[in-house]
Amino acid sequence: VEDDDAEGARALVAPLHPADIADLFELAPADSRAALAAALADLLDGDVLAEMNDWVRDGLIDALEPHQVAEIAGELDTDDAVAIIEDMEEDDQRAVLRALAPDDRAAIEEALSYGEETAGRLMQRDLIAVPEHWSVGDVLDYLRSNEDLTTDFWEIFVVDPSHKPVGTVALSWILRTPRGIAIADVMAREQTLIPVDMDQEEVALRFQKYALISAAVTDQSGRLVGMITVDDVVHIIQEEAGEDILKLSGAGDGDINEPLRDSYSARVRWLVANLGTALVGSSIIAFFGAAIEHMVALAILMPIVASIGGNAGTQTMAVAVRALAMNQLTQSNTIRTIKREIMIAALNGLTIAVLIGIGAALVFQNHHLGFVIAAAMLINVIVAGLAGVLVPVLLERMDQDPAVASSVFVTMITDSMGFFAFLGLAVASGIVPSA
Amino acid sequence: VEDDDAEGARALVAPLHPADIADLFELAPADSRAALAAALADLLDGDVLAEMNDWVRDGLIDALEPHQVAEIAGELDTDDAVAIIEDMEEDDQRAVLRALAPDDRAAIEEALSYGEETAGRLMQRDLIAVPEHWSVGDVLDYLRSNEDLTTDFWEIFVVDPSHKPVGTVALSWILRTPRGIAIADVMAREQTLIPVDMDQEEVALRFQKYALISAAVTDQSGRLVGMITVDDVVHIIQEEAGEDILKLSGAGDGDINEPLRDSYSARVRWLVANLGTALVGSSIIAFFGAAIEHMVALAILMPIVASIGGNAGTQTMAVAVRALAMNQLTQSNTIRTIKREIMIAALNGLTIAVLIGIGAALVFQNHHLGFVIAAAMLINVIVAGLAGVLVPVLLERMDQDPAVASSVFVTMITDSMGFFAFLGLAVASGIVPSA
Repeated sequence: VEDDDAEGARALVAPLHPADIADLFELAPADSRAALAAALADLLDGDVLAEMNDWVRDGLIDALEPHQVAEIAGELDTDDAVAIIEDMEEDDQRAVLRALAPDDRAAIEEALSYGEETAGRLMQRDLIAVPEHWSVGDVLDYLRSNEDLTTDFWEIFVVDPSHKPVGTVALSWILRTPRGIAIADVMAREQTLIPVDMDQEEVALRFQKYALISAAVTDQSGRLVGMITVDDVVHIIQEEAGEDILKLSGAGDGDINEPLRDSYSARVRWLVANLGTALVGSSIIAFFGAAIEHMVALAILMPIVASIGGNAGTQTMAVAVRALAMNQLTQSNTIRTIKREIMIAALNGLTIAVLIGIGAALVFQNHHLGFVIAAAMLINVIVAGLAGVLVPVLLERMDQDPAVASSVFVTMITDSMGFFAFLGLAVASGIVPSA
Repeated sequence: VEDDDAEGARALVAPLHPADIADLFELAPADSRAALAAALADLLDGDVLAEMNDWVRDGLIDALEPHQVAEIAGELDTDDAVAIIEDMEEDDQRAVLRALAPDDRAAIEEALSYGEETAGRLMQRDLIAVPEHWSVGDVLDYLRSNEDLTTDFWEIFVVDPSHKPVGTVALSWILRTPRGIAIADVMAREQTLIPVDMDQEEVALRFQKYALISAAVTDQSGRLVGMITVDDVVHIIQEEAGEDILKLSGAGDGDINEPLRDSYSARVRWLVANLGTALVGSSIIAFFGAAIEHMVALAILMPIVASIGGNAGTQTMAVAVRALAMNQLTQSNTIRTIKREIMIAALNGLTIAVLIGIGAALVFQNHHLGFVIAAAMLINVIVAGLAGVLVPVLLERMDQDPAVASSVFVTMITDSMGFFAFLGLAVASGIVPSA
């Protein structure tokens, strides 16, 4: 549509919300995005770019000259400008910074000086801070008389003479309070302060826990340096909560707009790691090769024990990873949670063991085999439950991300234990000669 | 600590934020929560309960008399009161409703009349709506002179004479605009309206996409009936984004505070379903029993092909489920995404096939076996990639939740195809006699 009738397309797209225009670009095939950008050049402003998927945006930004990027970044709040610039290559980044107005450049350079994914990158510098001794009327006059103040705020911060935050006032309070009342009398003194170097995941948890709309960001000496608003945090909450599923399955960033090469490299690394764990399972099978040659039913049944163990382990692991991410699983309830998971595993294991035991005994007309697979299943499901909670908890204790590495270990444990318990019990119980 | 010195404990806990008191209850062992509640009875108010994990709250609520629950619910906003009451059993719910003040009861009954997990349950009724013809000064006077208005608002809604919303004004605009200006001149006419029966997941996506702080909720005839604020949506975003990982692994609600019986029943159902899929894989192995008896190396290697296929399928599936949940994968880019995933799968498959092919040829001193496993691996990883995106997409088209059911199907496909391709190729290539 777009290529034939650029004017018509522009008329259709112009009234849309920036987020919808951004969606349009994301849904367009990668190779026609540049043409679309050319056709809609004047609509492709900072707000649209700020809403766009990282990968799609990077593709478009790469095609722009540094001064064009600088122009777009100059229109945006610091936090959105930083989001656009932070992923550029260093040379391009420097070129864009040089092309920016000095005050924008200083603000963005300062933001870039904080670590990636910290509060310092998320915050915006434009905020309203007033001294304690002002009245509500003083605040209203100040807001009305200063044309160049931001309008993007929901709370006002009250600071002491050294610019440390002492309280917060929601705008609804200011609106409902007579002019003569001191701001110090309506402000909430209890407030959640965000240190500038706090990880964004922790910032998101604070916002969620305390139902914040905005929060003051303070530097090492406790002075107010910026503010984070909930609309910036909502993206983080989405991302952080959603990325565990991708990490746990080893899908990297898992974005359908990610370049093929990046997706390949993230995923193949994971598959190679899993090839390693699969080899552990295979060597256990190899050890019992003679038993399998003697009774091929073992080869038929052994994947079932491993597979159900793997599923049970994944269930427990998903629960544990989620609880760790939400700060629900802490030192004080680890033991209780482990006991709980073992109980569930024992119940699950018993149920499945009875089913498969009876089934195998009937199909192979061999009740010894039924007992062996039932016992192996029970053992493996309980081990899976234990591993599913212990592995993520231990990784967390060692400051590793439990979502990333847990799966490889848990699968290795459930596979190996499944083969070992089943084949080992088969040999030990004497239904096949020992290897 | 708490049992010995109730007074001391109260002094410690009293200054905490309701969310922190709620955390304290969650971290306490289940059987000591009642004692803790007794010791901290006066601190255990509606705000604390509203912040609490559903399961922990239900446990505490069950121990309370209906009039006590009614008292707590009466203090809360409608949305929080509904959250507490909606999970109660019907008899208890009725008793609580009877004990409520008539206006609270009417509001809560109306909210309960909307479906679970809809905008109607999430919204609060207390909001500020003003007529179009008012000036900023009128609004200020109205807000200052009505003592019983809510202070929990960030935007004001402007309505026409039939109470349909026509615009929204952020409080910062009202604060920065002289009294004489008409409200219609400062309001934003473009606004996101939420129909009262919209699913909460869709509400959360709207809030995220358009960076909303609050939004008007309208009934079937388009009249303003309530408002949803971002702090209520943040919980939903967290939950919805996080629950895919639990669904995909069949862990049910996956909450560590869920009663054991519920966890068991959710998980065992999943394991039984997976037992069914494992049996499909086993029957394929059984079909090739003679080949395995002839060459035990096949039994040793076959789980590797199935396992890597399973991992590759899970990766693609996680990416697809996530993209579907974020509305990123739509009709218009399905074909492109499928092609992309097949490309990645082909690259991954080739890499792993080369590794395992060379490895198997060397270990078993049989380069025919190396070729067979390499070919089977390539086929299975590509099939896994295809299944990983097709299964969730098809389930979504059939209005099923792709996160819940995809995993069973994809695993069945990768397991069966792994065994079939490997054992089938081994027989077809003649390295073992046919079955």
